[in-house]
Amino acid sequence: MAGGVGSRFWPMSTPDMPKQFIDVLGCGRTLIQLAYDRFQGICQPENFWVVTSAKYGDLVKEQLPEIPDDHILLEPCRRNTAPCIAYVSWKIKAKNPRANIVVAPSDHIVMDNREFARVVLSALKFTADSDAIVTLGMKATRPETGYGYIEADLSMACPSNKEIYRVDSFREKPSLPTAQRYLQKKNYFWNAGIFVWNVSTIVNALRVYQPKIGEIFERMLPYFYTDKEQSMIDESFPQCENISIDYAIMEKADEIYVFPASFGWSDLGTWGSLHENMHRDAYDNLSVGPNIRLIDSRNCVVHALQEKKVVVQGLDGYLVAENNDMLLVCRLSEEQRIGEFTKED
Amino acid sequence: MAGGVGSRFWPMSTPDMPKQFIDVLGCGRTLIQLAYDRFQGICQPENFWVVTSAKYGDLVKEQLPEIPDDHILLEPCRRNTAPCIAYVSWKIKAKNPRANIVVAPSDHIVMDNREFARVVLSALKFTADSDAIVTLGMKATRPETGYGYIEADLSMACPSNKEIYRVDSFREKPSLPTAQRYLQKKNYFWNAGIFVWNVSTIVNALRVYQPKIGEIFERMLPYFYTDKEQSMIDESFPQCENISIDYAIMEKADEIYVFPASFGWSDLGTWGSLHENMHRDAYDNLSVGPNIRLIDSRNCVVHALQEKKVVVQGLDGYLVAENNDMLLVCRLSEEQRIGEFTKED
Repeated sequence: MAGGVGSRFWPMSTPDMPKQFIDVLGCGRTLIQLAYDRFQGICQPENFWVVTSAKYGDLVKEQLPEIPDDHILLEPCRRNTAPCIAYVSWKIKAKNPRANIVVAPSDHIVMDNREFARVVLSALKFTADSDAIVTLGMKATRPETGYGYIEADLSMACPSNKEIYRVDSFREKPSLPTAQRYLQKKNYFWNAGIFVWNVSTIVNALRVYQPKIGEIFERMLPYFYTDKEQSMIDESFPQCENISIDYAIMEKADEIYVFPASFGWSDLGTWGSLHENMHRDAYDNLSVGPNIRLIDSRNCVVHALQEKKVVVQGLDGYLVAENNDMLLVCRLSEEQRIGEFTKED
Repeated sequence: MAGGVGSRFWPMSTPDMPKQFIDVLGCGRTLIQLAYDRFQGICQPENFWVVTSAKYGDLVKEQLPEIPDDHILLEPCRRNTAPCIAYVSWKIKAKNPRANIVVAPSDHIVMDNREFARVVLSALKFTADSDAIVTLGMKATRPETGYGYIEADLSMACPSNKEIYRVDSFREKPSLPTAQRYLQKKNYFWNAGIFVWNVSTIVNALRVYQPKIGEIFERMLPYFYTDKEQSMIDESFPQCENISIDYAIMEKADEIYVFPASFGWSDLGTWGSLHENMHRDAYDNLSVGPNIRLIDSRNCVVHALQEKKVVVQGLDGYLVAENNDMLLVCRLSEEQRIGEFTKED
């Protein structure tokens, strides 16, 4: 899934070049490339599918030349994750009704790719032989209020995979006291938005719980893999309800499982999460860029990949981000206001 | 005089493009162009001379195409103001022994060009008929410790120009208590480094007080206006003592005069002086650039001429300056450390 606009990461991320297409970590690979790399040994290049906005199609082709062009699906408009997943699922099923699938966002980070591969392969083995909907649940390390949580029933491990448990409930982003309670309880996991299932399972679930979306893609079947596909999608996709897969399926279906895991995951939803997940200096500063010098500064994020030289002096708890001739300096504690800051008067 | 390197204005000003060649005020004209404009009605284009470093010769030609190419004198190395003034003075005298001259830095600002023209024309009239060395003394408006001061004898106005007074002494940059005393005394003026004299006066003064420099340019006489001038200058100029005109002449000569004036002058020596001299918003912020937004911020200077969009939030008393893919954020109170900040480790 590569259709996000990453507005909370301005100015690094902009609607023309959202964060999945940016080398956020300054490592030489963009987030979507890192997501692709993460599946080496799990999935052949010809079995990757990318669903993105029509405007990002060329970016995906450029950044992931290994993926067949016709595996890049272009949404004419944004409709959240359920229609996105439905599109690619119906299309894959038309070609391979026995396909086994991992759905993952393209703009997250994973620090431990080996553990990621182990978990994903184990989950795929599980869904190859069952109609389970499996979510990856991240073991919480702090009382995070920015994530949804998955409540697991740890008393019931699956017989065929002892690492997988039934889900009791999905919980929306909690308040801080609630998040603190979740952290203590040990059976609450962060919902990473990474799903494993076989293609029949998800198509059936969408048919049952989102029949309107199901009908739209059922009617698409004659047009998949033809010249008319894009024009038909452009016509019918906008008719889909704007709904996340969590609301559309997870909170409704019965047979939901969670695979608790710990592989250094972050959704990189905010500058603060980048600060938390990256290597910081002795003064808790994070710098990403070729030549950044911090003086008398603490707890700062300085992100300036294109700047030849950056000097920051005397700041505590600030974000300094420069990209593409746009510059933001703000308190990290105020970063939820970035959208407001950047709105034109 | 256009040979300065403007290191205190990093990153706007760099050794490759110092501040006299930059549109510091964001008005569409660089400081040297504004200095040129300031002399409209005082001096014909063919009577301008620019002394600069060899590396800036092309910049001067580009920015001041009106000036004859051979009036751009190129110093092979930096030797402060005395050798710079000596070079151009000997050269002008060789062509026109009766020339009447204003020497001015190219990187200062003047807010009231009309009053500037009145003062300069009045001083020129005075030096046309006398051997006086005239300095322009800026009426102090604050106890500035960053400028040298001129102590005038206000009891002795010149008979031929009642605005011009004898100088009692030149004073170096004072401490704050001393500057406060100067401000109260009314006969202390800021030394703006702007001088008016006829060419014989300054050449004679240099011969008397700086005989070694005098000899060097005396020996240059046969080569001025020939193909050999540059190579001879490249050889002999470095032999000049590195000395300012203030030390070389002003503090030694007897017949020094001051013309107290008030035309909104600043030497723009520091970001703070830009802050003081430019129009600020209701929160005492100065922004120079096409699209700068300040939120919850006070007493800041934001200078980003090339950035398409800048957002600054939550800063008080900071400088944010971006230029040519270089970025500086620092406390304005620490700006004297800019040189240290930018030094490579």
